[in-house]
Amino acid sequence: MDEIRNMGEDSLIDKLLEQVPAAALGTGAAGAGDDCAVIEADGDVQQLLKTDAMVEGRHWDPDTEASRVGWKAVARVISDIAAMGGRPEEFLVTLALPGSVSVDWATGLYRGMGKCLEAFGARMVGGETTRCPEGAPVVISIAARGVVNREQVTLRSEGKAGDLLLVTGKLGGSLEERHLDFLPRVEEADWLTRQFKPTAMMDLSDGLAADLPRLARASGCGAKLDHSALPLHANCSIEQALNDGEDYELLFAIDADSVAPLRESWAKRFPETALSVIGSLCEIEEGDTLSGGWDHFRKD
Amino acid sequence: MDEIRNMGEDSLIDKLLEQVPAAALGTGAAGAGDDCAVIEADGDVQQLLKTDAMVEGRHWDPDTEASRVGWKAVARVISDIAAMGGRPEEFLVTLALPGSVSVDWATGLYRGMGKCLEAFGARMVGGETTRCPEGAPVVISIAARGVVNREQVTLRSEGKAGDLLLVTGKLGGSLEERHLDFLPRVEEADWLTRQFKPTAMMDLSDGLAADLPRLARASGCGAKLDHSALPLHANCSIEQALNDGEDYELLFAIDADSVAPLRESWAKRFPETALSVIGSLCEIEEGDTLSGGWDHFRKD
Repeated sequence: MDEIRNMGEDSLIDKLLEQVPAAALGTGAAGAGDDCAVIEADGDVQQLLKTDAMVEGRHWDPDTEASRVGWKAVARVISDIAAMGGRPEEFLVTLALPGSVSVDWATGLYRGMGKCLEAFGARMVGGETTRCPEGAPVVISIAARGVVNREQVTLRSEGKAGDLLLVTGKLGGSLEERHLDFLPRVEEADWLTRQFKPTAMMDLSDGLAADLPRLARASGCGAKLDHSALPLHANCSIEQALNDGEDYELLFAIDADSVAPLRESWAKRFPETALSVIGSLCEIEEGDTLSGGWDHFRKD
Repeated sequence: MDEIRNMGEDSLIDKLLEQVPAAALGTGAAGAGDDCAVIEADGDVQQLLKTDAMVEGRHWDPDTEASRVGWKAVARVISDIAAMGGRPEEFLVTLALPGSVSVDWATGLYRGMGKCLEAFGARMVGGETTRCPEGAPVVISIAARGVVNREQVTLRSEGKAGDLLLVTGKLGGSLEERHLDFLPRVEEADWLTRQFKPTAMMDLSDGLAADLPRLARASGCGAKLDHSALPLHANCSIEQALNDGEDYELLFAIDADSVAPLRESWAKRFPETALSVIGSLCEIEEGDTLSGGWDHFRKD
Protein backbone atom coordinates (compact mmCIF):
# COMPACT_ATOMS: atom_id res chain seq x y z
CA MET A 1 0.00 0.00 0.00
CA ASP A 2 1.63 3.23 -1.11
CA GLU A 3 2.32 5.73 1.66
CA ILE A 4 2.09 9.47 1.23
CA ARG A 5 5.69 9.92 2.38
CA ASN A 6 6.74 8.48 -0.98
CA MET A 7 5.05 11.30 -2.87
CA GLY A 8 6.11 14.92 -3.08
CA GLU A 9 3.67 17.40 -1.59
CA ASP A 10 2.72 18.91 -4.95
CA SER A 11 1.94 15.58 -6.61
CA LEU A 12 0.01 14.41 -3.53
CA ILE A 13 -2.18 17.50 -3.72
CA ASP A 14 -2.74 16.96 -7.45
CA LYS A 15 -3.83 13.39 -6.74
CA LEU A 16 -6.14 14.44 -3.92
CA LEU A 17 -7.83 17.11 -6.01
CA GLU A 18 -8.49 14.54 -8.76
CA GLN A 19 -10.94 12.89 -6.35
CA VAL A 20 -13.18 15.95 -6.21
CA PRO A 21 -15.94 16.20 -8.86
CA ALA A 22 -15.31 19.05 -11.32
CA ALA A 23 -18.50 20.80 -10.17
CA ALA A 24 -17.16 20.90 -6.60
CA LEU A 25 -13.72 22.24 -7.48
CA GLY A 26 -12.85 25.92 -7.73
CA THR A 27 -11.26 26.86 -11.03
CA GLY A 28 -8.90 29.54 -12.23
CA ALA A 29 -7.88 32.01 -9.58
CA ALA A 30 -10.48 30.47 -7.25
CA GLY A 31 -8.64 27.15 -7.34
CA ALA A 32 -5.79 25.49 -5.50
CA GLY A 33 -2.19 26.28 -6.42
CA ASP A 34 -1.68 29.94 -5.59
CA ASP A 35 -0.83 31.63 -2.30
CA CYS A 36 -4.55 32.25 -1.75
CA ALA A 37 -7.79 31.44 -3.54
CA VAL A 38 -9.37 34.48 -5.19
CA ILE A 39 -13.15 34.69 -4.84
CA GLU A 40 -14.81 36.90 -7.42
CA ALA A 41 -17.06 39.55 -5.97
CA ASP A 42 -19.00 42.37 -7.55
CA GLY A 43 -17.28 45.71 -7.51
CA ASP A 44 -13.64 46.70 -7.34
CA VAL A 45 -12.68 44.58 -4.36
CA GLN A 46 -12.16 40.83 -4.55
CA GLN A 47 -11.77 38.40 -1.72
CA LEU A 48 -8.90 36.11 -0.79
CA LEU A 49 -9.21 32.92 1.25
CA LYS A 50 -6.26 31.13 2.79
CA THR A 51 -5.49 28.38 5.30
CA ASP A 52 -2.12 27.50 6.74
CA ALA A 53 -1.06 24.98 9.37
CA MET A 54 1.92 24.67 11.68
CA VAL A 55 2.97 21.56 13.57
CA GLU A 56 4.97 21.56 16.81
CA GLY A 57 8.46 20.20 16.23
CA ARG A 58 8.33 20.98 12.52
CA HIS A 59 7.47 24.65 12.38
CA TRP A 60 8.66 25.52 15.87
CA ASP A 61 10.76 23.93 18.61
CA PRO A 62 8.81 22.94 21.70
CA ASP A 63 10.93 25.29 23.83
CA THR A 64 10.11 28.36 21.75
CA GLU A 65 8.33 31.17 23.57
CA ALA A 66 4.62 30.69 22.83
CA SER A 67 3.96 34.30 21.85
CA ARG A 68 6.55 34.07 19.07
CA VAL A 69 4.89 30.90 17.78
CA GLY A 70 1.60 32.81 17.70
CA TRP A 71 3.17 35.73 15.84
CA LYS A 72 4.62 33.37 13.25
CA ALA A 73 1.36 31.47 12.73
CA VAL A 74 -0.51 34.66 11.86
CA ALA A 75 2.36 36.35 10.00
CA ARG A 76 2.70 33.39 7.60
CA VAL A 77 -0.89 33.82 6.50
CA ILE A 78 -0.55 37.59 6.19
CA SER A 79 2.50 36.99 4.00
CA ASP A 80 0.43 34.80 1.65
CA ILE A 81 -2.28 37.45 1.42
CA ALA A 82 0.33 40.14 0.73
CA ALA A 83 1.80 38.00 -2.04
CA MET A 84 -1.50 38.31 -3.94
CA GLY A 85 -1.49 42.12 -3.55
CA GLY A 86 -4.05 41.95 -0.74
CA ARG A 87 -4.76 43.09 2.80
CA PRO A 88 -5.62 40.75 5.69
CA GLU A 89 -9.08 41.07 7.28
CA GLU A 90 -10.60 38.28 9.42
CA PHE A 91 -8.83 35.30 10.98
CA LEU A 92 -10.08 32.05 12.51
CA VAL A 93 -7.80 29.95 14.65
CA THR A 94 -8.02 26.19 15.14
CA LEU A 95 -5.92 24.54 17.83
CA ALA A 96 -5.59 20.77 18.17
CA LEU A 97 -3.64 20.02 21.32
CA PRO A 98 -3.16 17.52 24.13
CA GLY A 99 -4.81 18.26 27.46
CA SER A 100 -1.45 18.53 29.21
CA VAL A 101 -0.54 21.76 27.40
CA SER A 102 -0.29 24.52 29.97
CA VAL A 103 -2.79 27.33 30.07
CA ASP A 104 0.22 29.68 30.11
CA TRP A 105 1.46 28.33 26.82
CA ALA A 106 -1.95 28.64 25.18
CA THR A 107 -2.49 32.19 26.43
CA GLY A 108 1.02 33.14 25.27
CA LEU A 109 0.20 31.80 21.84
CA TYR A 110 -2.92 33.92 21.60
CA ARG A 111 -1.05 36.97 22.87
CA GLY A 112 1.41 36.63 19.99
CA MET A 113 -1.36 36.08 17.46
CA GLY A 114 -3.22 39.12 18.79
CA LYS A 115 -0.09 41.27 18.56
CA CYS A 116 0.48 40.33 14.93
CA LEU A 117 -3.18 40.81 13.98
CA GLU A 118 -3.17 44.24 15.59
CA ALA A 119 0.09 45.23 13.88
CA PHE A 120 -1.42 44.49 10.47
CA GLY A 121 -4.95 45.77 11.07
CA ALA A 122 -6.63 42.35 11.04
CA ARG A 123 -9.11 40.74 13.45
CA MET A 124 -9.73 37.35 15.04
CA VAL A 125 -13.38 36.39 14.56
CA GLY A 126 -13.56 32.81 15.70
CA GLY A 127 -12.04 29.40 15.68
CA GLU A 128 -11.99 26.24 17.66
CA THR A 129 -9.99 24.21 20.13
CA THR A 130 -10.02 20.44 19.99
CA ARG A 131 -8.16 17.89 21.98
CA CYS A 132 -5.49 15.45 20.78
CA PRO A 133 -4.12 12.45 22.66
CA GLU A 134 -1.10 12.93 24.92
CA GLY A 135 2.12 12.84 22.94
CA ALA A 136 0.58 14.26 19.78
CA PRO A 137 2.13 17.52 18.58
CA VAL A 138 0.20 20.76 18.85
CA VAL A 139 -1.30 21.67 15.47
CA ILE A 140 -2.26 25.28 14.73
CA SER A 141 -4.43 25.85 11.68
CA ILE A 142 -5.21 29.40 10.64
CA ALA A 143 -7.87 30.42 8.14
CA ALA A 144 -8.17 33.95 6.88
CA ARG A 145 -10.08 36.20 4.56
CA GLY A 146 -8.34 39.07 2.84
CA VAL A 147 -9.40 41.64 0.30
CA VAL A 148 -7.61 42.92 -2.77
CA ASN A 149 -8.37 45.62 -5.30
CA ARG A 150 -9.25 44.00 -8.58
CA GLU A 151 -6.40 45.67 -10.48
CA GLN A 152 -3.84 44.65 -7.85
CA VAL A 153 -4.55 40.89 -7.86
CA THR A 154 -1.28 39.16 -8.71
CA LEU A 155 -1.26 35.44 -9.39
CA ARG A 156 1.62 33.04 -9.83
CA SER A 157 0.46 32.10 -13.26
CA GLU A 158 0.78 35.17 -15.45
CA GLY A 159 4.57 35.36 -15.79
CA LYS A 160 5.95 35.52 -19.35
CA ALA A 161 9.18 34.24 -20.86
CA GLY A 162 11.59 37.19 -20.82
CA ASP A 163 10.27 38.64 -17.54
CA LEU A 164 12.97 39.27 -14.97
CA LEU A 165 12.76 37.62 -11.55
CA LEU A 166 13.25 39.73 -8.45
CA VAL A 167 13.29 39.05 -4.76
CA THR A 168 12.87 41.40 -1.78
CA GLY A 169 15.22 41.38 1.22
CA LYS A 170 17.79 38.68 1.83
CA LEU A 171 17.60 34.92 1.85
CA GLY A 172 18.84 31.99 3.94
CA GLY A 173 19.39 31.20 7.57
CA SER A 174 15.83 31.89 8.69
CA LEU A 175 16.01 29.15 11.29
CA GLU A 176 18.54 31.17 13.29
CA GLU A 177 15.58 33.07 14.74
CA ARG A 178 14.14 35.22 12.01
CA HIS A 179 11.33 32.82 11.12
CA LEU A 180 9.67 33.61 14.43
CA ASP A 181 9.57 37.40 14.22
CA PHE A 182 9.43 38.30 10.57
CA LEU A 183 7.37 41.16 9.19
CA PRO A 184 5.26 40.08 6.25
CA ARG A 185 5.80 42.33 3.22
CA VAL A 186 2.29 43.79 3.16
CA GLU A 187 3.32 47.38 2.54
CA GLU A 188 5.91 46.46 -0.07
CA ALA A 189 3.51 44.19 -1.97
CA ASP A 190 0.75 46.78 -1.87
CA TRP A 191 3.08 49.46 -3.23
CA LEU A 192 4.47 47.11 -5.87
CA THR A 193 1.11 45.96 -7.18
CA ARG A 194 -0.12 49.56 -7.36
CA GLN A 195 2.96 51.12 -8.93
CA PHE A 196 4.67 48.41 -11.00
CA LYS A 197 2.34 45.50 -11.45
CA PRO A 198 4.37 42.25 -11.42
CA THR A 199 3.14 39.60 -13.85
CA ALA A 200 3.49 36.87 -11.19
CA MET A 201 4.26 36.90 -7.49
CA MET A 202 4.45 34.57 -4.47
CA ASP A 203 6.00 34.57 -1.03
CA LEU A 204 9.03 32.39 -0.32
CA SER A 205 8.10 29.92 2.37
CA ASP A 206 9.64 26.62 1.26
CA GLY A 207 12.91 28.02 -0.10
CA LEU A 208 13.69 29.44 -3.53
CA ALA A 209 14.67 26.00 -4.88
CA ALA A 210 11.15 24.68 -4.16
CA ASP A 211 9.16 27.87 -4.73
CA LEU A 212 10.68 29.27 -7.92
CA PRO A 213 9.82 26.13 -9.93
CA ARG A 214 6.22 26.48 -8.67
CA LEU A 215 5.95 30.04 -9.95
CA ALA A 216 7.58 29.09 -13.27
CA ARG A 217 5.37 26.01 -13.70
CA ALA A 218 2.19 27.96 -12.86
CA SER A 219 3.18 30.48 -15.55
CA GLY A 220 3.96 27.78 -18.11
CA CYS A 221 7.60 28.89 -18.15
CA GLY A 222 11.07 27.70 -17.20
CA ALA A 223 13.36 29.81 -15.02
CA LYS A 224 17.03 30.74 -15.22
CA LEU A 225 18.54 31.55 -11.87
CA ASP A 226 21.71 33.61 -11.40
CA HIS A 227 23.08 31.98 -8.27
CA SER A 228 25.71 34.67 -7.82
CA ALA A 229 23.01 37.34 -7.66
CA LEU A 230 21.17 35.85 -4.71
CA PRO A 231 20.95 38.31 -1.81
CA LEU A 232 22.36 36.45 1.20
CA HIS A 233 21.84 37.05 4.88
CA ALA A 234 25.08 37.45 6.82
CA ASN A 235 26.98 34.15 7.15
CA CYS A 236 24.65 32.36 4.75
CA SER A 237 25.67 30.30 1.76
CA ILE A 238 23.97 30.15 -1.62
CA GLU A 239 22.84 26.65 -0.66
CA GLN A 240 21.09 28.06 2.37
CA ALA A 241 19.44 30.78 0.33
CA LEU A 242 18.09 28.11 -1.98
CA ASN A 243 17.02 25.52 0.56
CA ASP A 244 16.48 26.81 4.09
CA GLY A 245 12.97 28.10 3.45
CA GLU A 246 10.89 30.38 5.68
CA ASP A 247 12.34 33.56 4.16
CA TYR A 248 8.87 35.10 3.72
CA GLU A 249 10.24 37.43 1.10
CA LEU A 250 8.42 38.29 -2.13
CA LEU A 251 9.49 36.57 -5.33
CA PHE A 252 8.07 38.16 -8.46
CA ALA A 253 8.36 38.32 -12.22
CA ILE A 254 8.03 41.62 -14.08
CA ASP A 255 8.61 42.71 -17.64
CA ALA A 256 12.24 43.65 -18.18
CA ASP A 257 11.57 47.27 -19.18
CA SER A 258 10.00 48.04 -15.82
CA VAL A 259 12.97 46.94 -13.78
CA ALA A 260 15.15 50.07 -13.99
CA PRO A 261 12.38 52.50 -12.96
CA LEU A 262 11.14 50.04 -10.34
CA ARG A 263 14.55 49.78 -8.70
CA GLU A 264 14.94 53.54 -8.65
CA SER A 265 11.53 54.08 -7.03
CA TRP A 266 12.01 51.16 -4.67
CA ALA A 267 15.29 52.55 -3.36
CA LYS A 268 13.51 55.78 -2.42
CA ARG A 269 10.43 54.14 -0.95
CA PHE A 270 12.09 51.22 0.87
CA PRO A 271 15.72 52.27 1.35
CA GLU A 272 16.32 49.65 4.03
CA THR A 273 15.16 46.68 1.98
CA ALA A 274 17.17 45.08 -0.78
CA LEU A 275 15.54 44.38 -4.15
CA SER A 276 17.57 42.03 -6.33
CA VAL A 277 17.27 40.73 -9.87
CA ILE A 278 18.02 37.02 -9.52
CA GLY A 279 17.17 35.59 -12.92
CA SER A 280 14.49 35.46 -15.56
CA LEU A 281 11.59 33.41 -16.87
CA CYS A 282 12.17 31.63 -20.15
CA GLU A 283 10.67 28.94 -22.35
CA ILE A 284 10.20 25.70 -20.43
CA GLU A 285 12.85 23.76 -22.35
CA GLU A 286 15.47 26.46 -21.68
CA GLY A 287 14.95 26.55 -17.92
CA ASP A 288 17.45 25.45 -15.26
CA THR A 289 16.68 22.35 -13.27
CA LEU A 290 16.25 23.28 -9.64
CA SER A 291 15.66 20.87 -6.83
CA GLY A 292 15.75 21.22 -3.09
CA GLY A 293 13.91 23.40 -0.65
CA TRP A 294 11.35 22.22 1.78
CA ASP A 295 8.93 19.45 0.89
CA HIS A 296 6.38 18.77 3.60
CA PHE A 297 6.24 15.06 2.90
CA ARG A 298 9.53 13.89 1.52
CA LYS A 299 11.71 15.46 4.20
CA ASP A 300 11.90 14.07 7.68
CA MET B 1 1.43 24.93 36.03
CA ASP B 2 -2.22 24.69 35.15
CA GLU B 3 -3.07 22.40 32.25
CA ILE B 4 -5.83 23.05 29.76
CA ARG B 5 -7.46 19.70 30.56
CA ASN B 6 -8.56 21.23 33.85
CA MET B 7 -10.60 23.88 32.11
CA GLY B 8 -13.83 23.47 30.17
CA GLU B 9 -13.64 24.30 26.48
CA ASP B 10 -15.82 27.38 26.79
CA SER B 11 -13.82 28.92 29.63
CA LEU B 12 -10.54 28.10 27.88
CA ILE B 13 -11.72 29.95 24.78
CA ASP B 14 -12.81 32.92 26.89
CA LYS B 15 -9.37 33.04 28.49
CA LEU B 16 -7.59 32.76 25.15
CA LEU B 17 -9.63 35.56 23.60
CA GLU B 18 -8.76 37.82 26.55
CA GLN B 19 -5.18 37.81 25.25
CA VAL B 20 -6.14 39.46 21.97
CA PRO B 21 -6.16 43.30 21.92
CA ALA B 22 -9.68 44.70 21.52
CA ALA B 23 -8.74 46.26 18.17
CA ALA B 24 -7.81 42.84 16.82
CA LEU B 25 -10.96 41.07 17.99
CA GLY B 26 -14.16 40.79 15.99
CA THR B 27 -17.20 42.02 17.86
CA GLY B 28 -20.92 41.28 17.77
CA ALA B 29 -21.93 38.83 15.09
CA ALA B 30 -18.37 39.00 13.68
CA GLY B 31 -17.00 37.57 16.90
CA ALA B 32 -16.41 34.18 18.44
CA GLY B 33 -19.27 32.30 20.09
CA ASP B 34 -21.75 31.54 17.33
CA ASP B 35 -21.82 28.71 14.78
CA CYS B 36 -20.10 31.02 12.29
CA ALA B 37 -18.70 34.54 12.29
CA VAL B 38 -20.83 36.97 10.30
CA ILE B 39 -18.87 39.44 8.18
CA GLU B 40 -20.83 42.54 7.25
CA ALA B 41 -20.86 43.27 3.54
CA ASP B 42 -22.63 45.90 1.49
CA GLY B 43 -25.88 44.81 -0.05
CA ASP B 44 -28.36 42.15 0.90
CA VAL B 45 -25.95 39.27 1.23
CA GLN B 46 -23.64 38.83 4.19
CA GLN B 47 -20.74 36.46 4.55
CA LEU B 48 -20.16 33.65 7.03
CA LEU B 49 -16.75 32.29 8.02
CA LYS B 50 -16.27 29.00 9.84
CA THR B 51 -13.50 26.58 10.78
CA ASP B 52 -13.93 23.12 12.22
CA ALA B 53 -11.43 20.42 13.08
CA MET B 54 -11.65 16.64 13.47
CA VAL B 55 -9.06 14.43 15.13
CA GLU B 56 -8.56 10.73 14.34
CA GLY B 57 -9.64 8.58 17.25
CA ARG B 58 -11.89 11.32 18.64
CA HIS B 59 -14.15 12.20 15.74
CA TRP B 60 -13.73 8.96 13.83
CA ASP B 61 -12.38 5.47 14.48
CA PRO B 62 -9.20 4.64 12.58
CA ASP B 63 -10.96 1.76 10.81
CA THR B 64 -13.72 3.96 9.38
CA GLU B 65 -13.94 4.10 5.60
CA ALA B 66 -12.04 7.24 4.57
CA SER B 67 -14.73 8.57 2.27
CA ARG B 68 -17.23 8.65 5.15
CA VAL B 69 -14.72 10.59 7.26
CA GLY B 70 -14.43 13.06 4.39
CA TRP B 71 -18.20 13.41 4.11
CA LYS B 72 -18.50 14.06 7.83
CA ALA B 73 -15.71 16.65 7.88
CA VAL B 74 -17.43 18.75 5.23
CA ALA B 75 -21.00 18.09 6.43
CA ARG B 76 -20.20 19.38 9.94
CA VAL B 77 -19.19 22.73 8.52
CA ILE B 78 -22.20 22.90 6.21
CA SER B 79 -24.37 22.21 9.26
CA ASP B 80 -22.86 25.23 11.05
CA ILE B 81 -23.47 27.45 8.04
CA ALA B 82 -27.07 26.20 7.76
CA ALA B 83 -27.61 26.98 11.45
CA MET B 84 -27.05 30.68 10.68
CA GLY B 85 -29.57 30.58 7.81
CA GLY B 86 -26.80 30.46 5.19
CA ARG B 87 -25.58 28.52 2.18
CA PRO B 88 -22.08 27.02 1.87
CA GLU B 89 -19.78 28.38 -0.85
CA GLU B 90 -15.99 27.84 -0.77
CA PHE B 91 -14.04 25.34 1.32
CA LEU B 92 -10.35 25.01 2.18
CA VAL B 93 -9.00 21.77 3.58
CA THR B 94 -5.98 21.41 5.83
CA LEU B 95 -4.60 17.95 6.54
CA ALA B 96 -1.91 17.29 9.14
CA LEU B 97 -0.89 13.65 8.91
CA PRO B 98 1.99 11.21 9.38
CA GLY B 99 3.90 10.11 6.29
CA SER B 100 2.79 6.50 6.78
CA VAL B 101 -0.83 7.28 5.92
CA SER B 102 -1.71 5.44 2.73
CA VAL B 103 -2.39 7.31 -0.48
CA ASP B 104 -5.60 5.25 -0.71
CA TRP B 105 -6.83 6.60 2.58
CA ALA B 106 -6.08 10.18 1.62
CA THR B 107 -7.75 9.86 -1.78
CA GLY B 108 -10.79 8.22 -0.17
CA LEU B 109 -11.03 11.14 2.24
CA TYR B 110 -11.05 13.64 -0.61
CA ARG B 111 -13.58 11.56 -2.53
CA GLY B 112 -15.97 11.80 0.42
CA MET B 113 -15.36 15.52 0.84
CA GLY B 114 -15.95 16.08 -2.88
CA LYS B 115 -19.20 14.11 -2.76
CA CYS B 116 -20.54 16.20 0.11
CA LEU B 117 -19.45 19.49 -1.45
CA GLU B 118 -21.14 18.53 -4.71
CA ALA B 119 -24.34 17.45 -2.94
CA PHE B 120 -24.65 20.88 -1.31
CA GLY B 121 -23.45 23.02 -4.21
CA ALA B 122 -20.18 24.09 -2.60
CA ARG B 123 -16.60 24.10 -3.93
CA MET B 124 -13.11 23.25 -2.72
CA VAL B 125 -10.78 26.14 -3.53
CA GLY B 126 -7.57 25.31 -1.72
CA GLY B 127 -5.94 24.05 1.40
CA GLU B 128 -2.77 22.49 2.57
CA THR B 129 -1.18 19.24 3.61
CA THR B 130 1.46 19.17 6.30
CA ARG B 131 3.29 16.30 7.90
CA CYS B 132 3.08 15.13 11.50
CA PRO B 133 5.41 12.69 13.26
CA GLU B 134 4.57 8.98 13.14
CA GLY B 135 2.04 8.03 15.81
CA ALA B 136 0.32 11.42 15.77
CA PRO B 137 -3.38 11.32 14.87
CA VAL B 138 -4.57 12.67 11.54
CA VAL B 139 -6.04 16.16 12.00
CA ILE B 140 -8.48 17.53 9.43
CA SER B 141 -9.22 21.23 9.63
CA ILE B 142 -11.85 22.69 7.33
CA ALA B 143 -12.40 26.38 6.69
CA ALA B 144 -15.36 27.66 4.77
CA ARG B 145 -17.07 30.76 3.54
CA GLY B 146 -20.83 30.87 3.29
CA VAL B 147 -23.33 33.52 2.35
CA VAL B 148 -26.61 34.46 3.95
CA ASN B 149 -29.36 36.89 3.06
CA ARG B 150 -29.31 39.74 5.53
CA GLU B 151 -32.87 39.10 6.74
CA GLN B 152 -32.19 35.39 7.25
CA VAL B 153 -29.16 35.74 9.53
CA THR B 154 -30.02 33.89 12.75
CA LEU B 155 -27.69 34.17 15.73
CA ARG B 156 -27.66 32.28 19.00
CA SER B 157 -28.03 35.48 20.95
CA GLU B 158 -31.43 36.93 20.13
CA GLY B 159 -33.66 34.48 21.95
CA LYS B 160 -36.20 35.97 24.42
CA ALA B 161 -37.67 34.66 27.65
CA GLY B 162 -40.99 33.05 26.69
CA ASP B 163 -39.78 31.78 23.31
CA LEU B 164 -40.41 28.10 22.76
CA LEU B 165 -37.50 25.77 22.01
CA LEU B 166 -37.76 23.36 19.09
CA VAL B 167 -35.56 20.72 17.61
CA THR B 168 -35.61 19.06 14.18
CA GLY B 169 -35.37 15.30 13.69
CA LYS B 170 -34.47 12.89 16.47
CA LEU B 171 -31.69 12.82 19.01
CA GLY B 172 -29.25 10.34 20.52
CA GLY B 173 -27.25 7.37 19.39
CA SER B 174 -25.37 9.15 16.63
CA LEU B 175 -22.27 7.07 17.25
CA GLU B 176 -24.06 3.98 15.97
CA GLU B 177 -23.20 5.18 12.45
CA ARG B 178 -25.28 8.22 11.74
CA HIS B 179 -22.55 10.73 12.57
CA LEU B 180 -20.70 9.65 9.42
CA ASP B 181 -23.45 10.05 6.85
CA PHE B 182 -25.77 12.74 8.12
CA LEU B 183 -27.40 15.32 5.88
CA PRO B 184 -26.94 18.84 7.20
CA ARG B 185 -30.25 20.68 7.50
CA VAL B 186 -29.52 23.30 4.84
CA GLU B 187 -32.89 23.17 3.14
CA GLU B 188 -34.81 23.09 6.42
CA ALA B 189 -32.86 26.01 7.89
CA ASP B 190 -33.24 28.05 4.71
CA TRP B 191 -36.98 27.48 4.67
CA LEU B 192 -37.29 28.20 8.38
CA THR B 193 -35.37 31.47 8.31
CA ARG B 194 -37.39 32.66 5.31
CA GLN B 195 -40.84 31.63 6.52
CA PHE B 196 -40.75 31.71 10.33
CA LYS B 197 -37.70 33.56 11.49
CA PRO B 198 -36.41 31.91 14.70
CA THR B 199 -35.03 34.34 17.27
CA ALA B 200 -32.02 32.10 17.94
CA MET B 201 -30.67 28.96 16.31
CA MET B 202 -27.68 26.61 16.40
CA ASP B 203 -26.83 23.10 15.29
CA LEU B 204 -26.51 20.34 17.87
CA SER B 205 -22.98 18.99 17.72
CA ASP B 206 -21.95 18.50 21.35
CA GLY B 207 -25.29 17.19 22.65
CA LEU B 208 -28.32 19.10 23.87
CA ALA B 209 -27.02 19.16 27.44
CA ALA B 210 -23.92 21.10 26.31
CA ASP B 211 -25.44 23.09 23.47
CA LEU B 212 -28.74 24.32 24.90
CA PRO B 213 -27.02 26.16 27.78
CA ARG B 214 -24.82 27.87 25.17
CA LEU B 215 -27.82 29.14 23.24
CA ALA B 216 -29.55 30.24 26.44
CA ARG B 217 -26.44 31.96 27.78
CA ALA B 218 -25.79 33.75 24.47
CA SER B 219 -29.38 35.03 24.59
CA GLY B 220 -29.08 36.15 28.22
CA CYS B 221 -31.75 33.62 29.20
CA GLY B 222 -32.23 30.44 31.16
CA ALA B 223 -33.88 27.38 29.61
CA LYS B 224 -36.54 24.94 30.79
CA LEU B 225 -36.29 21.56 29.16
CA ASP B 226 -39.17 19.07 28.96
CA HIS B 227 -37.23 15.83 29.07
CA SER B 228 -40.28 13.77 28.20
CA ALA B 229 -40.72 15.73 24.95
CA LEU B 230 -37.29 14.91 23.55
CA PRO B 231 -37.58 13.16 20.17
CA LEU B 232 -35.55 9.97 20.54
CA HIS B 233 -33.94 7.80 17.91
CA ALA B 234 -34.97 4.14 18.12
CA ASN B 235 -33.45 2.39 21.14
CA CYS B 236 -32.11 5.64 22.58
CA SER B 237 -32.61 6.90 26.11
CA ILE B 238 -33.22 10.46 27.21
CA GLU B 239 -29.68 10.42 28.62
CA GLN B 240 -28.34 9.63 25.17
CA ALA B 241 -30.41 12.37 23.56
CA LEU B 242 -28.91 14.81 26.04
CA ASN B 243 -25.31 13.66 26.00
CA ASP B 244 -24.29 11.68 22.94
CA GLY B 245 -23.69 14.67 20.71
CA GLU B 246 -23.18 14.71 16.94
CA ASP B 247 -26.91 14.89 16.22
CA TYR B 248 -26.43 17.77 13.74
CA GLU B 249 -30.05 18.73 14.17
CA LEU B 250 -31.27 22.32 14.43
CA LEU B 251 -32.11 23.72 17.87
CA PHE B 252 -33.99 26.98 17.75
CA ALA B 253 -36.05 29.42 19.77
CA ILE B 254 -39.10 31.11 18.31
CA ASP B 255 -41.90 33.23 19.72
CA ALA B 256 -44.68 31.07 21.08
CA ASP B 257 -47.39 32.45 18.77
CA SER B 258 -45.52 31.24 15.68
CA VAL B 259 -45.31 27.65 16.77
CA ALA B 260 -48.75 26.39 15.71
CA PRO B 261 -48.59 27.78 12.15
CA LEU B 262 -44.96 26.70 11.89
CA ARG B 263 -45.74 23.11 12.80
CA GLU B 264 -48.58 23.00 10.35
CA SER B 265 -46.46 24.31 7.46
CA TRP B 266 -43.50 22.18 8.47
CA ALA B 267 -45.55 18.99 8.36
CA LYS B 268 -46.49 19.79 4.76
CA ARG B 269 -43.04 20.87 3.65
CA PHE B 270 -40.96 18.27 5.51
CA PRO B 271 -43.34 15.39 6.23
CA GLU B 272 -40.49 12.96 6.91
CA THR B 273 -38.78 15.07 9.53
CA ALA B 274 -39.97 15.49 13.09
CA LEU B 275 -40.24 18.96 14.61
CA SER B 276 -40.62 18.93 18.39
CA VAL B 277 -41.23 21.53 21.05
CA ILE B 278 -38.81 20.57 23.82
CA GLY B 279 -38.98 23.49 26.23
CA SER B 280 -38.75 27.23 26.47
CA LEU B 281 -36.41 30.09 27.23
CA CYS B 282 -37.00 31.88 30.51
CA GLU B 283 -35.37 34.36 32.87
CA ILE B 284 -31.90 33.19 33.88
CA GLU B 285 -32.79 32.52 37.49
CA GLU B 286 -35.74 30.33 36.51
CA GLY B 287 -33.76 28.08 34.19
CA ASP B 288 -32.99 24.39 34.71
CA THR B 289 -29.43 23.40 35.44
CA LEU B 290 -28.16 21.22 32.64
CA SER B 291 -24.81 19.56 32.54
CA GLY B 292 -23.32 16.91 30.34
CA GLY B 293 -22.75 16.60 26.65
CA TRP B 294 -19.44 16.69 24.97
CA ASP B 295 -16.64 18.91 26.24
CA HIS B 296 -13.56 18.82 24.05
CA PHE B 297 -11.17 19.21 26.95
CA ARG B 298 -12.67 17.75 30.06
CA LYS B 299 -13.62 14.41 28.57
CA ASP B 300 -11.03 11.77 27.77
